[in-house]
Amino acid sequence: MRMYDLIEKKKRGGELNHDELHYMVDGYVKGEIPDYQMSAMLMAIYFNGMSDDETTFLTLEMARSGDMVDLSPIEGFKVDKHSTGGVGDKTTLIIGPVVAALGVRVAKMSGRGLGHTGGTIDKLEAIPGFRTSIPREEFFDIVGRVGIAVAGQSGNLVPADKKLYALRDVTATVDSIPLIASSIMSKKLAAGSDGIVLDVKTGSGAFMKTLEDSVTLARKMVAIGTGAGRACTALITDMDVPLGFAIGNALEVIESVEVLKGKGPEDLREVSLRLAAEMLHTAGRGSAGECYHMAEKTLRDGSAFETLKKMTEAQGGDVRCLENPELFPQAAFTSEVKAQQSGYIVHMDTEACGIASVLLRAGRSRKEDEIDPAAGIVLCKKYGDRVEEGQTLAVLYASDRDLFEAAGKKLLDAYRISDSRPEAKKLIYARISGSGEVRYEA
Amino acid sequence: MRMYDLIEKKKRGGELNHDELHYMVDGYVKGEIPDYQMSAMLMAIYFNGMSDDETTFLTLEMARSGDMVDLSPIEGFKVDKHSTGGVGDKTTLIIGPVVAALGVRVAKMSGRGLGHTGGTIDKLEAIPGFRTSIPREEFFDIVGRVGIAVAGQSGNLVPADKKLYALRDVTATVDSIPLIASSIMSKKLAAGSDGIVLDVKTGSGAFMKTLEDSVTLARKMVAIGTGAGRACTALITDMDVPLGFAIGNALEVIESVEVLKGKGPEDLREVSLRLAAEMLHTAGRGSAGECYHMAEKTLRDGSAFETLKKMTEAQGGDVRCLENPELFPQAAFTSEVKAQQSGYIVHMDTEACGIASVLLRAGRSRKEDEIDPAAGIVLCKKYGDRVEEGQTLAVLYASDRDLFEAAGKKLLDAYRISDSRPEAKKLIYARISGSGEVRYEA
Repeated sequence: MRMYDLIEKKKRGGELNHDELHYMVDGYVKGEIPDYQMSAMLMAIYFNGMSDDETTFLTLEMARSGDMVDLSPIEGFKVDKHSTGGVGDKTTLIIGPVVAALGVRVAKMSGRGLGHTGGTIDKLEAIPGFRTSIPREEFFDIVGRVGIAVAGQSGNLVPADKKLYALRDVTATVDSIPLIASSIMSKKLAAGSDGIVLDVKTGSGAFMKTLEDSVTLARKMVAIGTGAGRACTALITDMDVPLGFAIGNALEVIESVEVLKGKGPEDLREVSLRLAAEMLHTAGRGSAGECYHMAEKTLRDGSAFETLKKMTEAQGGDVRCLENPELFPQAAFTSEVKAQQSGYIVHMDTEACGIASVLLRAGRSRKEDEIDPAAGIVLCKKYGDRVEEGQTLAVLYASDRDLFEAAGKKLLDAYRISDSRPEAKKLIYARISGSGEVRYEA
Repeated sequence: MRMYDLIEKKKRGGELNHDELHYMVDGYVKGEIPDYQMSAMLMAIYFNGMSDDETTFLTLEMARSGDMVDLSPIEGFKVDKHSTGGVGDKTTLIIGPVVAALGVRVAKMSGRGLGHTGGTIDKLEAIPGFRTSIPREEFFDIVGRVGIAVAGQSGNLVPADKKLYALRDVTATVDSIPLIASSIMSKKLAAGSDGIVLDVKTGSGAFMKTLEDSVTLARKMVAIGTGAGRACTALITDMDVPLGFAIGNALEVIESVEVLKGKGPEDLREVSLRLAAEMLHTAGRGSAGECYHMAEKTLRDGSAFETLKKMTEAQGGDVRCLENPELFPQAAFTSEVKAQQSGYIVHMDTEACGIASVLLRAGRSRKEDEIDPAAGIVLCKKYGDRVEEGQTLAVLYASDRDLFEAAGKKLLDAYRISDSRPEAKKLIYARISGSGEVRYEA
């Protein structure tokens, strides 16, 4: 077999078989296939796409390029959730405890934030003492005892994805749906859960800006998950507006705790409950409706919050913070962003909101950047709200006053204010079942 | 400027401007742009193509990446000819002397053969003593005295093409019309002639198998030549059947001499005269019809043959061979390929005929292969001819008897024989004028 012939085949619109994809991934990871051949292949894939079978085989080969986590020492059904990334997207902090409180195991490997999107690991590390780098045995032990543990990716997990992603990043081949899907799903497959619920974001703050692209990506990922023998479904959820009000690591933990205490922003609560219900349903706990009610109950009775506290304790975090938000690291300075005109907020450039938070050092523009756990934004007004000129749109938090000017301008420019009240937005657009059927929400 | 952004632009179907193409070619030759980015760009060009302006700028930048030959020390109009390559394509050996005999200068840089196609340098080197590697000054001097010299590419000519071609060759990006056109034309522009006549081959032995692709390539190359300020036209000529009867280096020189003596195969003579007329016309020597008659006269009066002899002498070759073919290196063995059935020859896989000659060591499958100047094939029957079972189709020449079996089988399989007489084929399909107008032959 020769890589040249595989490039030629894909260039001509052919379908690569499992043997060919094994040869390609294995050879690339071993350094036998050079970057310049792989980048030509990636560009050919960008143009000609990949069938569901092809993408599944590619993903399996990527997953198998390193360690495959074996979760069988943990009893019961293990369910994972993945979000394609957004602004203010802190649902893992809520859903994980909800699901675990109901006895479904969550052995979650999470990532850090990059660019305008945040990452669960950064959020959890805002809790003083919280350890996200834990040995495999201790991780399993915590999942077994508490029902949930969340750790950073460790060991030699999916080296093929690391190498391929680095190449895509410099060859303008990131935005290919089969490549995005295989990158995400290879990590999910390697992480070993029995069920996977995908939260595919759509809108101005998502990687997929259109509903059509989001549905295409979701279908592709579900096809891979199902093809690889996992229970897999997806929800398409809104990211045209930041989720909740808080953007920034400690701020988002505090807001998540509010939801776990039965309060908090309505949009965040609703999306979290729908995703939690999806996870419970995937684990065979009943119909989606029944599961939704079960999940809701864990917020009312405090059992989900209790689970977050137990996990925090097990992972070395200061549990007192969760009860007393003032114990979290505090930003030295705040600044208010005020409306320049009266009217309705008819659009928010959510990616720009995320970038504003990065400018405050709540996130990273490059992987090696340090972040400030206390920094961020609390929105006071969101899409659809009425504001008057001079009213506060948002409060910025930072450790350095000099950061406010650029971040404030970025955030202000992200708001579009107009005279007429905009239509209400959906929170959930569609559900993709394991068989690939798309059901749009009414 | 960043290569990433240029890849992204081309991927989205954008047009690269002259500055961007300068940055790209210059950076690639200097090693500042890595192969993996260039190969992604090449694949994006394969899919999205390039406009005439873009291809012209790319070609100019490639040409300027190394030495640009300055032919101004040679007086008069200098005209070059390029063939896209074929089997038995020895027209340069005929046309060059014809045109030079009429006072138009030919300072020709030629290449070696590779794969199923031959190269002029290999053919000339079949003449004992013939030097194709000559210092620039001597080369100019011969052109000035004799009217023509043919040398191999020397010095630092178009390093961008060497590097790009090597990359295309391993990334399945050879078969892109703008990339083929820029590769050929960059070398023609750097070689410095005032006029360029392109012989774009079409059919089973050509790189472009269809007339449509051949016309597209020819138009693109003419657009580049004209855009770069050269007088440039193209003929589309047949390569669905080998040109003439001889395939192999010494054998082809002998056949060319036959044509220069006013004899030789009709197809080879006609294509050569049409191309020579095109070159003379480009040099302003009269209408195409007038030029055709002028060219014909040089074959009748022996002046073209005289010119070949003078050039051979100037380049150190043994002129006696040209008068006495038996003085050429002789193959130790011959073998006849016989028809297995009676009928008309309705098709010849001309690429396979070329490969059969490579199997006899008349050509190279890899650049580093040695060739045997005496080896090759003399066809006895070609397309349209009637043959009877057991009649000789071709005679094979080689220095090793063991080569006959594979080569003979390859050649025999290249012939298709059927009961009904096939239609006559055109030798010239179309002419592309400097303005890009395509005139198909009646």
